[in-house]
Amino acid sequence: MKTSLAVIGAGRIGQIHAGNAARHPAIQLAGIADALPQPAAELAARLGTRVLDVEQILADRDIAGVLICSSTDTHADLIQRAVAAGKHVFCEKPVDLDLARARACQKAVEAAGRACLIGFQRRFDPTFAALKARLDAGEIGTPEALTVVSRDPGAPPVAYLQRSGGIFKDMLIHDFDIFRWILGDEAASLYATGSCLTDAAIAREADDIDTTAVTIRTVSGRLCQIHTSRRAAYGYDQRFEVLGSDGMLQAGNHRPTEVTAFGSAVVSTDKPEHFFLQRYEQAYRAELEHFVAVLGGRETLRVGIADGVKALELADAATRSWREGAVVHFGA
Amino acid sequence: MKTSLAVIGAGRIGQIHAGNAARHPAIQLAGIADALPQPAAELAARLGTRVLDVEQILADRDIAGVLICSSTDTHADLIQRAVAAGKHVFCEKPVDLDLARARACQKAVEAAGRACLIGFQRRFDPTFAALKARLDAGEIGTPEALTVVSRDPGAPPVAYLQRSGGIFKDMLIHDFDIFRWILGDEAASLYATGSCLTDAAIAREADDIDTTAVTIRTVSGRLCQIHTSRRAAYGYDQRFEVLGSDGMLQAGNHRPTEVTAFGSAVVSTDKPEHFFLQRYEQAYRAELEHFVAVLGGRETLRVGIADGVKALELADAATRSWREGAVVHFGA
Amino acid sequence: MKTSLAVIGAGRIGQIHAGNAARHPAIQLAGIADALPQPAAELAARLGTRVLDVEQILADRDIAGVLICSSTDTHADLIQRAVAAGKHVFCEKPVDLDLARARACQKAVEAAGRACLIGFQRRFDPTFAALKARLDAGEIGTPEALTVVSRDPGAPPVAYLQRSGGIFKDMLIHDFDIFRWILGDEAASLYATGSCLTDAAIAREADDIDTTAVTIRTVSGRLCQIHTSRRAAYGYDQRFEVLGSDGMLQAGNHRPTEVTAFGSAVVSTDKPEHFFLQRYEQAYRAELEHFVAVLGGRETLRVGIADGVKALELADAATRSWREGAVVHFGA
Amino acid sequence: MKTSLAVIGAGRIGQIHAGNAARHPAIQLAGIADALPQPAAELAARLGTRVLDVEQILADRDIAGVLICSSTDTHADLIQRAVAAGKHVFCEKPVDLDLARARACQKAVEAAGRACLIGFQRRFDPTFAALKARLDAGEIGTPEALTVVSRDPGAPPVAYLQRSGGIFKDMLIHDFDIFRWILGDEAASLYATGSCLTDAAIAREADDIDTTAVTIRTVSGRLCQIHTSRRAAYGYDQRFEVLGSDGMLQAGNHRPTEVTAFGSAVVSTDKPEHFFLQRYEQAYRAELEHFVAVLGGRETLRVGIADGVKALELADAATRSWREGAVVHFGA
Repeated sequence: MKTSLAVIGAGRIGQIHAGNAARHPAIQLAGIADALPQPAAELAARLGTRVLDVEQILADRDIAGVLICSSTDTHADLIQRAVAAGKHVFCEKPVDLDLARARACQKAVEAAGRACLIGFQRRFDPTFAALKARLDAGEIGTPEALTVVSRDPGAPPVAYLQRSGGIFKDMLIHDFDIFRWILGDEAASLYATGSCLTDAAIAREADDIDTTAVTIRTVSGRLCQIHTSRRAAYGYDQRFEVLGSDGMLQAGNHRPTEVTAFGSAVVSTDKPEHFFLQRYEQAYRAELEHFVAVLGGRETLRVGIADGVKALELADAATRSWREGAVVHFGA
Repeated sequence: MKTSLAVIGAGRIGQIHAGNAARHPAIQLAGIADALPQPAAELAARLGTRVLDVEQILADRDIAGVLICSSTDTHADLIQRAVAAGKHVFCEKPVDLDLARARACQKAVEAAGRACLIGFQRRFDPTFAALKARLDAGEIGTPEALTVVSRDPGAPPVAYLQRSGGIFKDMLIHDFDIFRWILGDEAASLYATGSCLTDAAIAREADDIDTTAVTIRTVSGRLCQIHTSRRAAYGYDQRFEVLGSDGMLQAGNHRPTEVTAFGSAVVSTDKPEHFFLQRYEQAYRAELEHFVAVLGGRETLRVGIADGVKALELADAATRSWREGAVVHFGA
Repeated sequence: MKTSLAVIGAGRIGQIHAGNAARHPAIQLAGIADALPQPAAELAARLGTRVLDVEQILADRDIAGVLICSSTDTHADLIQRAVAAGKHVFCEKPVDLDLARARACQKAVEAAGRACLIGFQRRFDPTFAALKARLDAGEIGTPEALTVVSRDPGAPPVAYLQRSGGIFKDMLIHDFDIFRWILGDEAASLYATGSCLTDAAIAREADDIDTTAVTIRTVSGRLCQIHTSRRAAYGYDQRFEVLGSDGMLQAGNHRPTEVTAFGSAVVSTDKPEHFFLQRYEQAYRAELEHFVAVLGGRETLRVGIADGVKALELADAATRSWREGAVVHFGA
Repeated sequence: MKTSLAVIGAGRIGQIHAGNAARHPAIQLAGIADALPQPAAELAARLGTRVLDVEQILADRDIAGVLICSSTDTHADLIQRAVAAGKHVFCEKPVDLDLARARACQKAVEAAGRACLIGFQRRFDPTFAALKARLDAGEIGTPEALTVVSRDPGAPPVAYLQRSGGIFKDMLIHDFDIFRWILGDEAASLYATGSCLTDAAIAREADDIDTTAVTIRTVSGRLCQIHTSRRAAYGYDQRFEVLGSDGMLQAGNHRPTEVTAFGSAVVSTDKPEHFFLQRYEQAYRAELEHFVAVLGGRETLRVGIADGVKALELADAATRSWREGAVVHFGA
């Protein structure tokens, strides 16, 4: 009894999920839809499945779940249509760039009673997931402070950044989710600042920044600092550490190999995995595995649309804090 | 145009290769044979293929290659029958426990002109392969000395050891191949010693040892030391380092995660991957990939039956050196 | 020709500096003064020198320099008297808890034209100094962001904290100096927050916090995040990392030994050096070496009273930011 | 009550020990002797002590101990004269290049009942000593196998090698002591081989080798492998690891700083400490501390002349094994 899934969106991330689905022994990849016929046809041919359109997917009673990998502006609408059609949803982040629309979408999902997994794949990374499990098991006592370093190897094109919603929604959305997941707490106040240091065009043409520093204080007084940059000459840098009352847990980068070279100048090892497709390869597989397990009733959903909305709230607040140069206070 | 392969042997390693073949987009898994009907049937069902017998496999003209994963005593015979039937072969190590028989098999393979990949999967491990490539690129100049540490988490049952051919043929056969591959040189002399330290039954009931120290001096004067143990309380330990005229390259263990824990007593990381199925998971996939590429004419065979025979010669010499307490000299 | 120095203050840090002076081949330890006769007498006896009082020290024309290791409230007065008496000064941090008084002191020093080394010993730590030298040599291009983690193994007694000036002046004063030194830039804005998480008495009885998060944005847009805690179950944790346009440099902790243990549960190494006396042992020696070199005209002063005042300005601003929950903007 | 010591030999290692003695608060450095007047005078002046000759040292009743740092060929004679004069001795390794003479010297020391510390300073290295203490505390159960890697940054001049007694006595003497100390066991058999790979002049002009591989099997069946090279392009490499029934302990190199650099090509750290003067700086101090404690009756001698003789026996056997190409068996 395979689980039948369809994929909407044949771009970079759609190819990842569709490929993982096609190789998964318990998944029947029912088909692939894309706004453009060519990419959909190529991907479907490569994976031995059909091209469908969104209507066909939603109408097909055999399809249990839809993987939404299309552009961000289509997410909210597709989520709502899919759950209305009785499908479970696995949607890439973010839910939407607009908080009100994301909240409306959350209501629709909750009303429909369908699972809506949001693609915060870092929660499924072996290192991050192991750290979280050890934290939950009490290994370092009560968590007190979280320090996140998150750097990309290089910035995407300015044209992409212009439509990205800004660095806080586009890049830090993942880090905000890490904050909520790891500390298991909500923000009481947030301060964000940043600069455009790697490419002046990012400020000039996209009115955005490329280097940020965010501080969150939680309702129970815990502290979180997030530092991100759009550029790290040495590759993709994804680390965090949690201080607890009884110790500290660090999550480090993964390296392609374990070769160490002793040369006449230095002792060296590999740089971190190049970018997210390499670093999170296992996470993407584990995330899909979880989706299938949720649909099969063997697991309960670990990261749902409410988490997507919460992360967006933080990204919204950070954008505001940065633009106004002031601390944002939540709640009341 | 998929490459059609069949698997003989549905045991532990047969399951690995058959599973990799079944998931490989360019391979058609034609069927599985095993001396016992039950394991073959279960594995075939799980992977969606047929149960065949050896005769059917050899007679089937559509099958291009055979993966021999059956017990060691069947290897030489199956290799010879398979190449006689025009098949390419991917055979698990060792070719045979008897050197004369292995050499005869080598002749048969060479006469048939078929590829015979021997399953020294360590050559396909990402870390080991990267080290070898950097060595070949001259990063540390001329290699001078190789130190190999190779430890299993625990010994197999004594009943297995009794039929294993002894630790040098059963366990160090891999390390002897590493020696030849990394130093790119042949042995001029070899000295082996060892002890039974982990379980007295290994000596008493299998007339074998569990801890070894081997020294090889090559024809060009390079030195190699190999240390192995059947038991490491901390898991599977597979490391080596090469000293060259301009530096040194180390190949370290792989760890399941990159979590570091700072506790009140120590700073700790994960133990190495538990055993060979975990550590060499990527190597097994890369090895099969190479076999397919060889059959497709895109790569030349990287490790053939001559390498299997050479490693067996070293294992034979080591056994003799250990039993006689003397240095073995090779060649003229 | 030895340099003659006297030490004022025979407490913990006075003992360090006096001991280093006594063992230094180019230093004549002229004597030790302390408000209490007993500690001064014991330390002088142990090091083979005399007990002096402050007046004697200042009147002694042979004494070239004074090491001020007495309590914080005496620093400014002693600095002013010492430079007025023509002495060069090496004074422990902070200059004073009161910014106005520190600034007055700075003026006095500048008017006297004497050297006044402020005891920011971290600048002399081998790891931190090597990183700074490589940064200045351009190894990672232009610095963009600095992340500082600074944790003590445990909080001092509440009675100490009550007179400490608060965590920002007492503990982060060092980190503020690291910020200025490493980024070579001044603060444009600063935001500080924090909590009392390790011991409620710190808030209740000392009106202080024990866990902080500070963000500084420099006049050229660089970002700095500092996280500190009064408690780390695993010891003294002093690290920072600088992201630059061409790479990143990390300064890690020092460990007592390089033993790695592979056990049945984990692979472990030593915890970091226990506390500042261990971690900065070499730094204290190098700092005194520098002071002697400055007095001998062989080096120019690397960290003077202006640096002490600047760090205090940041600590003052951080205290204000924390108490008011708002961003502090500098300059205009 | 200071302990009065004199130093014989003002060369490189004599300068180390004399300097440590001069700075030690509980040692009175009574004087320095050397066959050449100039080095003795310079060192004595630098350390504020007198030049003495050997007769004066031996005749001076106030001198409790003699540090013998002169050339190897004088060791045995000076040891015998010193203990005959009632002095305790701290003598650099080796006792002598000739085993018979070393044994005669051992008898003289034992008859005189004086302490004779042999300068195997590695036993006092913080990392090695900590490993040994943990091993003795049972942390990894019963030791089974020891792997030693010992490489110098570069070979000494051939003229030195010609009088060195060969690599096994000159360089591996330390490693043989490590073997006995760590495994706490004696050799039953030994096999040594080697090559001249770094400089043909070493073979041609000194009839010696520069790269070695030694295997020792102990009377209780434990295994030890030692690999050494006269050249490591990356510096001084001094590591070993012990496998025990319950785990493994590794002793790694020390690095000058804890800076890690993330560049566009690799992630790098410092090379190991350059050579023995840097790596064993702490060990030399601790060794002298131990000698003083032995003279003061607070510690019992940890490494005496019997250990020096035993290490020489192994070096002798290794030389024989290498020259004859055969295994050496000890005992009867």
